[in-house]
Amino acid sequence: MINVKVVGASGYGGIGIIELLLKHPEAKISSLVAMESVGMPISQIWPHLTGFCDMEVTAPDDPRAQEPADVVFMATPDRVGMNNAAAELAKGAKIIDYSGDFRFNTAEEYAEYATRIGKDPVHAAPDLLPLSVYGAPELHRADINIDRKIVGNPGCFAISCILGLAPAANAKLFTPNSVICDCKSGISGAGKKLAATFHYPNRYDMMNAYKLAGHQHVCEVERELSKLAGEKIMLTFTSQVVPLCRGIMSCLYADLREDMTEEQVIEIYKEFYKDSPFVRVLPSTAAVGSMHVRGTNFTNLVISVDRRVRRLRVVSYIDNLVKGQAGSALQNMNLIFGLPETTGLDHPSFFP
Amino acid sequence: MINVKVVGASGYGGIGIIELLLKHPEAKISSLVAMESVGMPISQIWPHLTGFCDMEVTAPDDPRAQEPADVVFMATPDRVGMNNAAAELAKGAKIIDYSGDFRFNTAEEYAEYATRIGKDPVHAAPDLLPLSVYGAPELHRADINIDRKIVGNPGCFAISCILGLAPAANAKLFTPNSVICDCKSGISGAGKKLAATFHYPNRYDMMNAYKLAGHQHVCEVERELSKLAGEKIMLTFTSQVVPLCRGIMSCLYADLREDMTEEQVIEIYKEFYKDSPFVRVLPSTAAVGSMHVRGTNFTNLVISVDRRVRRLRVVSYIDNLVKGQAGSALQNMNLIFGLPETTGLDHPSFFP
Amino acid sequence: MINVKVVGASGYGGIGIIELLLKHPEAKISSLVAMESVGMPISQIWPHLTGFCDMEVTAPDDPRAQEPADVVFMATPDRVGMNNAAAELAKGAKIIDYSGDFRFNTAEEYAEYATRIGKDPVHAAPDLLPLSVYGAPELHRADINIDRKIVGNPGCFAISCILGLAPAANAKLFTPNSVICDCKSGISGAGKKLAATFHYPNRYDMMNAYKLAGHQHVCEVERELSKLAGEKIMLTFTSQVVPLCRGIMSCLYADLREDMTEEQVIEIYKEFYKDSPFVRVLPSTAAVGSMHVRGTNFTNLVISVDRRVRRLRVVSYIDNLVKGQAGSALQNMNLIFGLPETTGLDHPSFFP
Amino acid sequence: MINVKVVGASGYGGIGIIELLLKHPEAKISSLVAMESVGMPISQIWPHLTGFCDMEVTAPDDPRAQEPADVVFMATPDRVGMNNAAAELAKGAKIIDYSGDFRFNTAEEYAEYATRIGKDPVHAAPDLLPLSVYGAPELHRADINIDRKIVGNPGCFAISCILGLAPAANAKLFTPNSVICDCKSGISGAGKKLAATFHYPNRYDMMNAYKLAGHQHVCEVERELSKLAGEKIMLTFTSQVVPLCRGIMSCLYADLREDMTEEQVIEIYKEFYKDSPFVRVLPSTAAVGSMHVRGTNFTNLVISVDRRVRRLRVVSYIDNLVKGQAGSALQNMNLIFGLPETTGLDHPSFFP
Repeated sequence: MINVKVVGASGYGGIGIIELLLKHPEAKISSLVAMESVGMPISQIWPHLTGFCDMEVTAPDDPRAQEPADVVFMATPDRVGMNNAAAELAKGAKIIDYSGDFRFNTAEEYAEYATRIGKDPVHAAPDLLPLSVYGAPELHRADINIDRKIVGNPGCFAISCILGLAPAANAKLFTPNSVICDCKSGISGAGKKLAATFHYPNRYDMMNAYKLAGHQHVCEVERELSKLAGEKIMLTFTSQVVPLCRGIMSCLYADLREDMTEEQVIEIYKEFYKDSPFVRVLPSTAAVGSMHVRGTNFTNLVISVDRRVRRLRVVSYIDNLVKGQAGSALQNMNLIFGLPETTGLDHPSFFP
Repeated sequence: MINVKVVGASGYGGIGIIELLLKHPEAKISSLVAMESVGMPISQIWPHLTGFCDMEVTAPDDPRAQEPADVVFMATPDRVGMNNAAAELAKGAKIIDYSGDFRFNTAEEYAEYATRIGKDPVHAAPDLLPLSVYGAPELHRADINIDRKIVGNPGCFAISCILGLAPAANAKLFTPNSVICDCKSGISGAGKKLAATFHYPNRYDMMNAYKLAGHQHVCEVERELSKLAGEKIMLTFTSQVVPLCRGIMSCLYADLREDMTEEQVIEIYKEFYKDSPFVRVLPSTAAVGSMHVRGTNFTNLVISVDRRVRRLRVVSYIDNLVKGQAGSALQNMNLIFGLPETTGLDHPSFFP
Repeated sequence: MINVKVVGASGYGGIGIIELLLKHPEAKISSLVAMESVGMPISQIWPHLTGFCDMEVTAPDDPRAQEPADVVFMATPDRVGMNNAAAELAKGAKIIDYSGDFRFNTAEEYAEYATRIGKDPVHAAPDLLPLSVYGAPELHRADINIDRKIVGNPGCFAISCILGLAPAANAKLFTPNSVICDCKSGISGAGKKLAATFHYPNRYDMMNAYKLAGHQHVCEVERELSKLAGEKIMLTFTSQVVPLCRGIMSCLYADLREDMTEEQVIEIYKEFYKDSPFVRVLPSTAAVGSMHVRGTNFTNLVISVDRRVRRLRVVSYIDNLVKGQAGSALQNMNLIFGLPETTGLDHPSFFP
Repeated sequence: MINVKVVGASGYGGIGIIELLLKHPEAKISSLVAMESVGMPISQIWPHLTGFCDMEVTAPDDPRAQEPADVVFMATPDRVGMNNAAAELAKGAKIIDYSGDFRFNTAEEYAEYATRIGKDPVHAAPDLLPLSVYGAPELHRADINIDRKIVGNPGCFAISCILGLAPAANAKLFTPNSVICDCKSGISGAGKKLAATFHYPNRYDMMNAYKLAGHQHVCEVERELSKLAGEKIMLTFTSQVVPLCRGIMSCLYADLREDMTEEQVIEIYKEFYKDSPFVRVLPSTAAVGSMHVRGTNFTNLVISVDRRVRRLRVVSYIDNLVKGQAGSALQNMNLIFGLPETTGLDHPSFFP
């Protein structure tokens, strides 16, 4: 059994990985760490876990929180992972970090990212950056292997955009600066932190775009697509929030270099994802939506081509808390422990 | 493996049992029968099942629909079960019926029920009624056994009320005609049939009481409580619909014969349910709600006593589609096949 | 024109009265006072008012906040009104207070109420209590007159219960301790204060009962009904929250002294409310719900009798922010300034 | 007083104009016509109108339905308006039609539009087409005048896109085929017709894109923008539905011909709309959303420029049932009767 420590256990990112781990046949939770609700059983914070996981939440400085584990999920805000990774690595753990801390491999890249979104550009553990890999198995499966020490888990919007455009970028189908990512998220994407904008009466009949000046997930999308395309890609990104709980729907647009049919694009996508069990490539007529991936690790990609203006459009659906967070994290854990990547993740959605 | 036929596969009751069966270690679906969507893979009706269950839906008169099975779930409206049970029994199947068809054991009782709700009082298979049991394991576990041929699965509102008041009725704590059941259901309780009242814009900011003249679940609640109390109990029942998807919250009131404390009542409830793994008895201060049983077979009972007026109040929470329907059905299947009643049902809710 | 000061302008109670005042032909807002958002135009806090009300919000100690007005709406928490009423009265204003501060006429009554809900029992301005009237025009119209200085505006749950049972209490139809108020509110009832329980992801598919030990609105319901009935009435009250924005649905139960028909009860109710333009009395077959009073000052009462057990049931629907708060407040303002009580309130709901 | 006939009174488009007309000082409803609910008072179909509008709904062939009126709102599906306009014109009425029937001025243009969306290309009243004007006052105010006989009211998505890009098209800021309209609508946009996709349980936690092959509103957007730009504009359009009731949020993208600042674009927009009381031009930092125009005739335009890739982005918010339908219709009525365009429409939104 893989012993798992979850840091940031009391947030949505924490509860997400706990729920998945409870169903995982090869892993077991060895400790739950958080800054809030310390000393309480996790089932007091999340009563739906009563009888399934009643483990006490410990503070980071509690000896129980410092016991070694095989893997540590850092379901924590920026800079927590980078400040704690070395100690965990020293105890023999592997790290899977949810934040932006380990999504870049050099201090320069990190600094550029941090500067762009107005954060401290100095990484606290620059020497660890080369040990990390960007946790998108569909692109970097070979590098997410048993020798890997650190995984920088992707951002939720980011992975929906990257998976939606990767095959097209890889095949150099579109012109570099024509990419637009119009992304809508359910409200759980903002986590459990209270904010007026997510207070029920302010939100139930409300949708809006936000952070028009630049969202923190743009850099990783541009980096991944640029690598695949072999040229610098810059994109326009619009983050939006709509009144539902779980789900991301990203409409992705790019100008095709040449006239192509939907079928030709679909073929390229299917080939690209032929070994990726969690990606479904669908035609423009597919009657699917965010509900069909809810609670799962799947990405549904609906492909269409607007041939009048030679434009590719991909509608990418994920569950922001699963493929967009805890599910990807577990998929990455499976890979760095040599397990099939679907272990513990191979279940359908529920309805209604 | 138990071979399972699901009749009424394309409704919410059908999808509910299909989802549960896909996770059940001892059962497998052998055929899916419905009047609608015949010839389509079930995953075309419910795209979230793609890759998990792609079995074709067959019409009732299709030879494949008539193959024998070990158990048949009749997830069908009134009178379908009573008209088809004999044929299935003859082929060696057991029957678990979701409707009111097998909730009563005599033609007279059935006639009284049917008359009260304005339906044809003549049961189509009166000779089968003595073979059936009312599928509330918490009350009739001993009778839901491997010799049992037919289970009349409880109504969703009914089971929430019965479990909420059974220990008090059994201990004769309250006066017979003082019972009030004030019941609120999420919208999935009405099934997938379209109706103006469940059209999103008509419902998103709307709640209402309905069927004030009498709901079809009242009879079975009165019957079960009367049996336990050893005297005739008549109750006032108010069915209400509120704008959420899954969940029933029933507020149950009854006048206590004697002054009692909350703690005394809780003790009686805990004793009554000590062998019932799906019932949780909680004090009045418990911070729980419908979300904490969502997707599960649990019943959460919050007990309080209004001592000023000597009144018992129980707030009973279930998921109307699980404990209120498919979950109870599977729990009953487990019992009539000699399996632990928690098999395939022993999972927590999800959040958020 | 009536000059109006709104204290607590930045909350839901404040915005509610501002919206109504903007449509009122005889009143105009002269100042907006709040503790938060001081110095901002109200349309920056509530952007939907842009161009309609851009008045600056002033702090309580700002000289502009202390200018005299003809009427002051205290849309404020407990104890703010009682601490500020004397000063406003001295400047010639009348007071309409939203809190519990002026709902009782003696220090003893207030102390009993405050004690029961765990608050400081000592009223800060006991000498003002005899000047106030409980602001239920349907019961106290004659006392809400141009000589009145202070109105204690009713609680939202309270007014729904009182209007639902007043005619029956007045006609002594029911036994005193048989009353049960099973009350559900939309989330706006909790105001704009952030709380985990009203964070969208925690609430969208969630309903629950709360404050089972006793809600702050019980005292005023018992007081009003007892007065009408001429005997002490004690009731069981269950406050619940369901996931919609606006609306209260209170199911009210009481044991009839004698067998009666629905029609007889309706006649009594219609007679009682014959001069009350905002109350509609409806039969048990009426297809109405919370949406049909949304945004209005109406109360819809659906009457039914469960003759098997001789029990009256009234389902009372209001908009918690209008009849339950700002609408009642404006209705009271109209009366204490000698205007028709419907002035500025005589508009239908909107749909969908 | 302007006598108004509403055809299609029982749908959302009908109720929308009825609600507005009840507040209009210069108009009164003279008849309500519909195919459904004939013979019922409109307040039985829409109980929230009780006491405000209890007029009977008449069938189209009822003599009362054929009485002359000053203006007829055709809140009807395609081809109803074109088949009935001549008769109404002959009786002296003006026509305001909600469908695509009168949005084009020549049979050829209509045929192209109808063909593109798979409908009968032959217009039933081609001779009337030159009498009509496209009902976007912000663009065609001078032509929506007292001599005008027919107004083709804009599509809801269409008007959100046209108003969002008109100033930029007019100033020739962008390249012709770079336009993308990514449009999300609340569910009321689909009207009151029942559909599985709008059944509450299928929609409450669901969003999806639809009609990827082409939406019926694209033609009018391309036509209007092309006219303004003086060159043929072809755009990619994505219609999406999200789980709220009222609101459209359209994210509009276009490649700027030259580098420009947000301020420069805002200045151009403000100048363009300086005489348009219902359009607000806002900077990228404005904290607004669909709720801030809910229930109103306003369009909120949030302007931003992605200078890295020289791309204009406008987020356009309207209420799909007001500015997107009945509100525009009333604004057009005001203009063709020589009234100020804000008459009866000059009210703020409500909150929450």
